This record gives sequence, C-alpha cells and structure tokens, in this order.
Amino acid sequence: MGVGSRYPAAMGRWAPGAESRLRDAALELFAGRGYEATTVADIAERAGLTARTFFRYFADKREVLFGGSATLLDEVTRAARSAPADASPIETVAAALDAFAATVGQDRSWSRRRRAVIDSTPELLERELVKLATMSHRLADVLRERGVPDPDAALVAEAGLGVLRVAFDTWTATADGPPLDEIMRSSLERLRAAVG
Amino acid sequence: MGVGSRYPAAMGRWAPGAESRLRDAALELFAGRGYEATTVADIAERAGLTARTFFRYFADKREVLFGGSATLLDEVTRAARSAPADASPIETVAAALDAFAATVGQDRSWSRRRRAVIDSTPELLERELVKLATMSHRLADVLRERGVPDPDAALVAEAGLGVLRVAFDTWTATADGPPLDEIMRSSLERLRAAVG
Repeated sequence: MGVGSRYPAAMGRWAPGAESRLRDAALELFAGRGYEATTVADIAERAGLTARTFFRYFADKREVLFGGSATLLDEVTRAARSAPADASPIETVAAALDAFAATVGQDRSWSRRRRAVIDSTPELLERELVKLATMSHRLADVLRERGVPDPDAALVAEAGLGVLRVAFDTWTATADGPPLDEIMRSSLERLRAAVG
Repeated sequence: MGVGSRYPAAMGRWAPGAESRLRDAALELFAGRGYEATTVADIAERAGLTARTFFRYFADKREVLFGGSATLLDEVTRAARSAPADASPIETVAAALDAFAATVGQDRSWSRRRRAVIDSTPELLERELVKLATMSHRLADVLRERGVPDPDAALVAEAGLGVLRVAFDTWTATADGPPLDEIMRSSLERLRAAVG
C-alpha cells in the first residue's frame, strides 16, 4: 500500500526548490522519528526553510503525502472517460491504470519511501484506503456513464483497483525491476487469466 | 460498505437478551444522534441496563459494530483453507465468500442499519476498509500456502474482496431481494464474464 505521487506546485522565485526540499525533509523525518512525532517546524528546519514557507506549499504535514491525490484522481477518471467508445469495461479500466502508472510511475524512490511511512502509520494507512476506495467509486461512475450496468460497473472498477494495489506493491517492493506501467499491464493480464 | 455480522456472546442469567437489546439500542442511537454523540451510558440507558452490563459484552461502543470481525475473519480464512486441494485460486476464494455469506447473510436488517451508520461516519468507514484489506491479505496468504504464486495470490484475493464488497452493497441496498449467498455467487460469475 502507499499509492501516490508528487506534484510540483508553482514555484516561487523566493525559494527555489523549496517544495522538493520540504518533501524530502518530511519523508526523512517521518521515516526516522515517526509521522506522529514530526512537526511542521521540524520539517521546515530540516529543509532550511521557515514554517511560513512550508504553508505556502502544504496545508499540513499530511498533505506532503496526499497533496497530489485530487489531481491524480482527476487524471485517472479523465483517462477512463477518454477511452474509445467501443472499449470494453475492462479496457476502460486499463486506460485508467495506464494514466495512474504514467504519473505515479515516474519516481519509484519517492513512492517507496512514502509507502514505508504509510504502512507503519495506521492513520495514514486508513487515509490511503479511503483514497483508493474513492478511486474505485469514481471509476464505477465513469463505467455507468458509458452504459455499463450494475453490478458490472462496480465489479470491474473494484477489480481494477485490486490490480492497481497489487501492481503498486510489486513495483515498490524492490528498488529496481520493471517500470510500473509494465507491471500494471502484466498484473491485469494475470488477473484475467486467473479469474476468467 | 459496512460489512459485518452480529455474534451472540455467552448470555448470563442476570440479563436475558441484554446483548441484543444493547445492540439494537446502540444502532438506534447511532442512527438518530450520530455515532460520535452517543455514549455508552446513553446506550445502556436506552436498553434499560447499566453501563456495567454494557461492558460485560463490549469493550467500547465501536465493538458493538466490529465485535464479530475477528471471528468472521477466522471463519472466512478457514473456509478457504478447507477448499478441495484441486480447487483453482478463484474457487478457493469462492469458498471463502460462501462462508462470509453464510454468517453475515443471516440478518439483512441489522446489516442495513449497521451499514448506514458506518457510511455516515468517516472514522468507522476507515475502520471497515482496514478490516476488509486485512481479509484480502489473509486470503492471499491462504492462496500462497496452497501453492499459488505471487502476484496471482494477491490479485485473486483482491478480486474476491471486490466481489464481496459489491455483493454486500447490493444486498444491503434494499430491504428484500435475493439472499446474500446468491448475490455473492452471481457477482463472482459476472466479474468472471466481464474480466476474463
């Protein structure tokens, strides 16, 4: 578990690289002393910046880990909506998984460190599960818009999220190996072979 | 969402039907004034019992909703482990889903009321998602014990939990209709047709 991505926010002239420095500092501290025990002041200090600068980029420390979620959800939903009109439900979900992999798959190192923090912090793990459940519901909605009846829409969306979770876990389990998009595609094919 | 069951605890002579009265009182209050705003004292009073009696059955108010989870998880795991040696991964998961339906499917009214409370309380919804993720991990472990390699073990377990969630939601969406075991089986067949 621990699915997410980093998004660069608009960068001000006044602190070049500030967002990236804050993210790295936060992950180091979360991993070292624990998420709960880390404060925004600690993160800013480690990054050589002020708390005021931190709040230009993030509403709170949790947003360092979840800040890109809404954008990612929109991208995934848009990809499903943009699938060819004659795409089957599972092909539509595959397009969504491709979009997820294209964004999240860019930085394995960050995803691995993020996942380690999330897996060891119940509050964050719950947040992550809610995020993924929301993605499943949004994908099911897109399938319904495309004329897929229930329960098929919900079932195929759930299966797609299952593939996403397993592929992400496989990808972040090691520091190297195939890229996320490749693992995503092969996982989907293995599911189809095992279930069909 | 809102998957769970009620389990009768050992009944003392001193308060016949106490557990059932406490459960009904708790659900009424959770639904009426909200989970957060309901105290154990409120629940006991509504049931015509003391808080002391409440604590003979439940560790806290959350356990009214989640008390049977560990037992249910064990039953589901045992059913998967007891599937015939030559059962395919998906047939093994189907046996687990049958066990879930046999237990949870007994009381639709209670499951419907429980689900309404859980769906409207973020803290409980997070707890429920963690519970279901745990069930998926346990099923994947059973498949690995049975010689199913990864990622197939994880993928089939995730797909099974997807079926469980959708079937449960379908079953609790209306006050009547087919029983849970029937919906579970037909949902699994629909997934296989849609994905395979």
